[in-house]
Amino acid sequence: MQLSSRLLEQAVAALNTLPSVGKKTALRLAMHLLQQDSSRVEDFCQSILAMRKGIKFCQKCHNISDDDICHICLSPARQTGVVCVVESIKEAMAIENSQHYNGQYHVLGGLISPSEGISPNQLQLQSLFERVRAGGISELIMALSPTIEGETTIHYIAQHLRDTNVKISSIARGVSFGSELEYADEMTLGRSIIARTPIQR
Amino acid sequence: MQLSSRLLEQAVAALNTLPSVGKKTALRLAMHLLQQDSSRVEDFCQSILAMRKGIKFCQKCHNISDDDICHICLSPARQTGVVCVVESIKEAMAIENSQHYNGQYHVLGGLISPSEGISPNQLQLQSLFERVRAGGISELIMALSPTIEGETTIHYIAQHLRDTNVKISSIARGVSFGSELEYADEMTLGRSIIARTPIQR
Repeated sequence: MQLSSRLLEQAVAALNTLPSVGKKTALRLAMHLLQQDSSRVEDFCQSILAMRKGIKFCQKCHNISDDDICHICLSPARQTGVVCVVESIKEAMAIENSQHYNGQYHVLGGLISPSEGISPNQLQLQSLFERVRAGGISELIMALSPTIEGETTIHYIAQHLRDTNVKISSIARGVSFGSELEYADEMTLGRSIIARTPIQR
Repeated sequence: MQLSSRLLEQAVAALNTLPSVGKKTALRLAMHLLQQDSSRVEDFCQSILAMRKGIKFCQKCHNISDDDICHICLSPARQTGVVCVVESIKEAMAIENSQHYNGQYHVLGGLISPSEGISPNQLQLQSLFERVRAGGISELIMALSPTIEGETTIHYIAQHLRDTNVKISSIARGVSFGSELEYADEMTLGRSIIARTPIQR
């Protein structure tokens, strides 16, 4: 695509680096920004830069935070005895948005994966064990992907906390709400039968 | 959506203002930017700001340009006697990308629309008439939308250039390549029969 302005070309190239933004979309975004007030475009860039430079990671749960300890860890309204262990901040956000959880989080920053060379000491596992051993935590909920890496990580955590009496659970696996049974994969369907729940009547 | 960081929230809100970027996409873009090197994010914002602040409009054809006169107007390789009249820079870009045009452009900055209160003197019409009267232009190609506003604008231009001998043409209207005849609207189909072209044999 040949544009009549090198400045426009560079902005389109920059926007084109965003995930799932192709050249045509990048051009549309650039044209949109071009039509905005200069001050609005400055604010737009300012909020992106402020985020990139200002965001910290909570020293306790490793979730993103504006301060040294995040507002979830600090909140007096939340349960302190239950910790949900997640792979990344994305999963923590998804669980927050489900509005069905009122406990703490622990963000591992990945999953143990020998094939990708990710070993336990590259993850926030030591700090998890320290949190548990410091006392006050009765349950760890493993909200990890149902993959080999996820299962390996769950097993590793369970092994290292054998000598504590913390309860370790996993989020339920089963057929999604709104999905058709015939399209569910066999693994999920099989597990959902084994882990069937009684119906109240 | 509740995020654990105000800075992230503000960046998501900013990205959310882009056309067809919803909250979920905005969050995905923000997470992507968060994972980039700080310097890359600075470059990203810098190219957007440079575009917004640096882009000028060509004094001759009113297309966007990095200089007072755009590179299309200055190019010695392009025809100078043919000028394609378009509504906005978007149409000029689309025609440039078709790679079937090697003349000049004139960007009107809109179409005459009494219903939207856009009068001829709000558009770059006077400068078009001046270009034609200055001589050297043999043909104006009207590449305007086939709407009432487009037809009104073509009529207005034709009326104002009655006393000159510049040829005024319109881009061909017809059935698009790759589209099914049965789905073409009646207006287009009707015009495409009237403006049928002989087949070479």
